[in-house]
Amino acid sequence: MDPNQNEDVFSAFVDEYQKTFFEMLFRFESKAEPIKDAWTREDGRGHGLTCVIQDGNFFEKAGVNVSRIIIPLSQGIYQQMKGRRVPGSNLDQIDMNNLAKYDTYANGVSLVIHPINPFCPTVHANFRTIRIKERETGKLIDSWFGGGSDLTPIYLFDEDAKLYHQNIRDAIVDVTGDDKFYRQYKKECDEYFVNHHRKEARGIGGVFYDDFNLESFEKGLQFQKGVAYANLNSYEAILNKRKDTPYNDQNVRWRSFRRGRYAEFNLIHDRGTKFGLMTPDARIESILMSLPLTARWEYNYHPEEGTEEARIVGVLLKPVEWV
Amino acid sequence: MDPNQNEDVFSAFVDEYQKTFFEMLFRFESKAEPIKDAWTREDGRGHGLTCVIQDGNFFEKAGVNVSRIIIPLSQGIYQQMKGRRVPGSNLDQIDMNNLAKYDTYANGVSLVIHPINPFCPTVHANFRTIRIKERETGKLIDSWFGGGSDLTPIYLFDEDAKLYHQNIRDAIVDVTGDDKFYRQYKKECDEYFVNHHRKEARGIGGVFYDDFNLESFEKGLQFQKGVAYANLNSYEAILNKRKDTPYNDQNVRWRSFRRGRYAEFNLIHDRGTKFGLMTPDARIESILMSLPLTARWEYNYHPEEGTEEARIVGVLLKPVEWV
Repeated sequence: MDPNQNEDVFSAFVDEYQKTFFEMLFRFESKAEPIKDAWTREDGRGHGLTCVIQDGNFFEKAGVNVSRIIIPLSQGIYQQMKGRRVPGSNLDQIDMNNLAKYDTYANGVSLVIHPINPFCPTVHANFRTIRIKERETGKLIDSWFGGGSDLTPIYLFDEDAKLYHQNIRDAIVDVTGDDKFYRQYKKECDEYFVNHHRKEARGIGGVFYDDFNLESFEKGLQFQKGVAYANLNSYEAILNKRKDTPYNDQNVRWRSFRRGRYAEFNLIHDRGTKFGLMTPDARIESILMSLPLTARWEYNYHPEEGTEEARIVGVLLKPVEWV
Repeated sequence: MDPNQNEDVFSAFVDEYQKTFFEMLFRFESKAEPIKDAWTREDGRGHGLTCVIQDGNFFEKAGVNVSRIIIPLSQGIYQQMKGRRVPGSNLDQIDMNNLAKYDTYANGVSLVIHPINPFCPTVHANFRTIRIKERETGKLIDSWFGGGSDLTPIYLFDEDAKLYHQNIRDAIVDVTGDDKFYRQYKKECDEYFVNHHRKEARGIGGVFYDDFNLESFEKGLQFQKGVAYANLNSYEAILNKRKDTPYNDQNVRWRSFRRGRYAEFNLIHDRGTKFGLMTPDARIESILMSLPLTARWEYNYHPEEGTEEARIVGVLLKPVEWV
């Protein structure tokens, strides 16, 4: 296998997914003009395309970004990666006394969509590959996939939650033959997207994998594609079901309140955001594109028992096996 | 000197300041009822009083909290303190193999005030004492003061910024005889309250001291009081000057946008928030009371050159010596 060829193949998937997802959004959005910002790192070691909808008639804010960066392997990045690698990882081969001779290659697509209608959920997804290479020789030391997708409803519709998880599960079974990976990564998702300081999940889950390989690059890519398009198709189906649901001021207030929680997770806990903020000369606006347009923090607010607002909080305190 | 007596003296200052400050706010607020939540830690090792205004006619959100906790000295807390202590600190006397025999005592008042009128600034202040004691004997190992106060205008009035700094400077000169401490702590403030990921200050400064002692407890307390009441009096004077300034939707939008930046600082960088979120069984609502009621993140928004919005961003990018 030619590693560089694999990079191009993954990159093509990422670009295609960005395009398809962003186009899908415009089947709902009819006011906002698409914002497309192509950027290049000043040191030449990376580029990306940030696609944004803001202040639309359907979306408060939506971003679908791709980026491709090659930065020197640092002690910090190495330790972070090493901490998560499964036993037997090639990272052990790295000459710790000479980290500077390696590069970290990261390529991926990342999206966060915040609709206006409080009955339409927020969705997040990220599909990436990370590679460690010897700079001079181009020799690939290690590579893996990471990513996943998850749903954050403001109001909970059980049938949407089931549909979302079922489609991801089915896509994974298609690629791997059983639902073992779905079970494992659903669990990791429930454990990761948590506002630990509140013991409250951000949303109702999906799948999350931070360090993942199957027997071949091709199989891994198939897995990434399976989850990615299950996410896209489910989300479009859910938006179609919920887009005309009428809402009132109280629903909007609850939406803004939940988006405060979303911002908390992204700013305090999210590893991707931290990685971004730690990357020298990173493009801040692309990283913090994930933040909602509006957020609200009310002191010590707890919804009344028996309300729909209280019901979703209950589910966020205790994850559910949806399928 | 009897250390326990000093604790009571400091505690009385903190309670008095909370009361006076919260009462001052009701010379402006006439709609919202004061929320006063007294709390006690379940393990009995601390208590506090959280005083909040929310959704008022004058204040979007305002919190003035006191807390007094005694928690076992942990490796994490010790390292954090040690990293900041001046040479010669008594922390060197601590038996590192037996951290469990020490307690950390922390007592202070903390406030963040977010007015509705975008021409009225946000203010933050914190006055605290930290003490390390041997649990069994009650022996005081080390103690110091920390705190400061700083102003975050949404729109900049140079005369307000000057007044605010002048009053703090004068109070410090009154206690210490010259403005050396003002200069130093103004600089530390400008260096600390920064959204480093944006290279942009949170506000226009004030003073900040994280580890501070004068020749005696009494002198140190005098310093804390001096800064505290300079902050209170200046803030009331500024509110009186700006409270009737008319504003429009664009001013409100800019206010929410700046509050997004405020939330970013508090959730990503603020050491007090981190300390709080790291404290086991901490009262989250009191810690995150500092977050604004509403915040807004617009993708890649930069105000037009020549506007008042652009002028304050210019000052946030490059701190000013106001006096």
